[in-house]
Amino acid sequence: MINISIITIGDELLIGQVIDTNSAWMAQELNKAGFAVIRRVAIGDNKHDILHALDEERKESSVILITGGLGPTNDDITKVVLCEYFRGKMIINAAALKNVKYLFEEVFKRPMQDINLKQAEVPDCCTVLQNKCGTAPGMLFQQSDKIFISMPGVPHEMKGMMEDGVIPFLKKQFEVDCILHQTLLTAGIGESFLAEKIKDFEESLPATVRLAYLPTNGMVRLRLTATGKDKLQTSSLLEKLFLQLQQLVSEYMVTNKDETLETEIAHLLIQQKATLALAESCTGGYISHLITSIPGSSAYFNGGVVSYSNTVKEEVLSVNTEVLEQYGAVSEAVAREMMTGVLSKLKATYAVAVTGIMGPGGGSAEKPVGTVWIAVGNASDIRTRELNLRFDRQRNIQLTAMHALNMLRKFMLGK
Amino acid sequence: MINISIITIGDELLIGQVIDTNSAWMAQELNKAGFAVIRRVAIGDNKHDILHALDEERKESSVILITGGLGPTNDDITKVVLCEYFRGKMIINAAALKNVKYLFEEVFKRPMQDINLKQAEVPDCCTVLQNKCGTAPGMLFQQSDKIFISMPGVPHEMKGMMEDGVIPFLKKQFEVDCILHQTLLTAGIGESFLAEKIKDFEESLPATVRLAYLPTNGMVRLRLTATGKDKLQTSSLLEKLFLQLQQLVSEYMVTNKDETLETEIAHLLIQQKATLALAESCTGGYISHLITSIPGSSAYFNGGVVSYSNTVKEEVLSVNTEVLEQYGAVSEAVAREMMTGVLSKLKATYAVAVTGIMGPGGGSAEKPVGTVWIAVGNASDIRTRELNLRFDRQRNIQLTAMHALNMLRKFMLGK
Repeated sequence: MINISIITIGDELLIGQVIDTNSAWMAQELNKAGFAVIRRVAIGDNKHDILHALDEERKESSVILITGGLGPTNDDITKVVLCEYFRGKMIINAAALKNVKYLFEEVFKRPMQDINLKQAEVPDCCTVLQNKCGTAPGMLFQQSDKIFISMPGVPHEMKGMMEDGVIPFLKKQFEVDCILHQTLLTAGIGESFLAEKIKDFEESLPATVRLAYLPTNGMVRLRLTATGKDKLQTSSLLEKLFLQLQQLVSEYMVTNKDETLETEIAHLLIQQKATLALAESCTGGYISHLITSIPGSSAYFNGGVVSYSNTVKEEVLSVNTEVLEQYGAVSEAVAREMMTGVLSKLKATYAVAVTGIMGPGGGSAEKPVGTVWIAVGNASDIRTRELNLRFDRQRNIQLTAMHALNMLRKFMLGK
Repeated sequence: MINISIITIGDELLIGQVIDTNSAWMAQELNKAGFAVIRRVAIGDNKHDILHALDEERKESSVILITGGLGPTNDDITKVVLCEYFRGKMIINAAALKNVKYLFEEVFKRPMQDINLKQAEVPDCCTVLQNKCGTAPGMLFQQSDKIFISMPGVPHEMKGMMEDGVIPFLKKQFEVDCILHQTLLTAGIGESFLAEKIKDFEESLPATVRLAYLPTNGMVRLRLTATGKDKLQTSSLLEKLFLQLQQLVSEYMVTNKDETLETEIAHLLIQQKATLALAESCTGGYISHLITSIPGSSAYFNGGVVSYSNTVKEEVLSVNTEVLEQYGAVSEAVAREMMTGVLSKLKATYAVAVTGIMGPGGGSAEKPVGTVWIAVGNASDIRTRELNLRFDRQRNIQLTAMHALNMLRKFMLGK
């Protein structure tokens, strides 16, 4: 297998001001493509440390991917240090210059500063990788049998460059075994219980097949990865094992594709030619955000009401004031009324309502932080459920959204 | 200054299964305490890679902090590899054994397995650091002038050990310089324009003070970092320069604290004893999510309407049907009606409305993807603005939210 090192450059990583999500994403994509990341190194915007890291990583890896330090400002020095390291000289790259000009004229619609011209400069000894989302070009250096690729640290710029440039290039460059993946998504079961359930299956796997547990927002993705020289053999083996795995976890399986819970719900709504409406209190719009993150969601998502205050619950969702006073905002009765209220108001086939206390404040002895009521239903039927979560605010919001959407999925399937 | 390397050990880090939040937290705490993290290295549970990392990091740093790979299962090998590296032999540590037994009897209330006894074994050449939250003891090795400290990877176990053991030890061990930071947030100006504006200031900075540009969701944070022997002198120098910087960027400054735009808006709403309502079309609940991510937001956030379909715009926000037909959903007129509609319906002091086309589909020649109309206002005044974005769906949503919240901030300040 081809060994890869990732070097992340930026002082902000070393004082902990930002959490490095880039290299996790990169590692995942590279792994899917059949490459092994063996080291991830984070260093500051410092010449000695950059040169040292380049020397060290080339000893261990055939490919060194570098992100960060390509901004136009003085604290970003990656480009000039790379230029020195590979004994090049800076030249203006025509394509990069064209891209910078295009971005300022057509996208940012702002006059270009001299400093931006610097973004079009690259060492004459590199191959330029286009950056469709930003002004900093990617740079590819080949020296003896080692490959170095420098990318911007801005996540969406790096991702675009990885998908369009880097991964296709690496696949072409190296004879990687055929690597096939099959992924399914489970919800409503913890990682350790899942592991218990599929223990024997996991132990019986051949050496060429790996199982990975990928926890994601309170759900667990299971990925089977098969490696082999022959594509047909590899894929038929993978399919056979993937079917076994699906049967073992069928009770908890959301989808047997590498998709999200909200995408699965999108599929179901489209299949049923149905529409959805949401009434969110404690999740504060997060569920709407998940649903509308999917392109084309306007086809089946009517909309939502973020009923943070009781006034909104009463005025917009016509929640009965007595019910609010008698049971309190966080109660099964109010969840029910929110659901029926938004269903009729927004004229949807299905509706979901959530109300709860996400913390850190707002809890009481009888309704502690983490108490949540969820209601899902349509014109003829309704289901409710109470959650008792014990995490921080962000995590409580995520988990509430996950449980609400999974309840909706099961309701739609009559499960 | 004392240089520190952090080595994080675990296969899950190299396939991108988990995002490493530990080392960001450690870097923050060490930085506050006056230590400089110069390298962060992530490697797998692999003997060669661990030994190699120990050899490499001791060349660059005086202190090497190691997390992960201390579990009782076979894939965790950090302890035995450290034992070999420092030429020790494994012995049962009485205090560690006592702790393991205590945790199983008093905390987990589960019978202890033989495998758990292994947790009390440590190399005889290390000093044991107590782990109050888990069974794996910390290990401190001193060799010539280098210090190595191994900690568990479980975040709350690592944090407890850092706070109670590691940081106090390091402070006692070394005479450290003080490091101080000041951060401000700007919006509505690109990194390069900002750099142009503060070019002279940046060039005039003394060697002990550094300026960093930190782009974040279409905004830019500026961080000044001052280092010095004397805390009073260092902080007064930093304060003086930070004031100069604030004056230079005042026009674009959102806050002179290390806070987000939504937190600043929270402060303003609380100061003004005002409330907020949102009408989101194209951002689909994302702005509500940002606002409600802040604990206590129910004090000033009445709620929002995600008016994805025209029915909702008409029924809930009372947008005039003729206006919708004449100008189309993505228009200044409809943004205005959404704003006034949600303001009165949700009885708020301020309201923000956004309508647009986030893509990839839904664009037209006259209204291409990225066309957005924003309206912010209160009972007596209203401001509108058109955006023309050219990014992917997620990014367009993020930037629309940022611009809308920044318009609200300026409106609230009468700027």
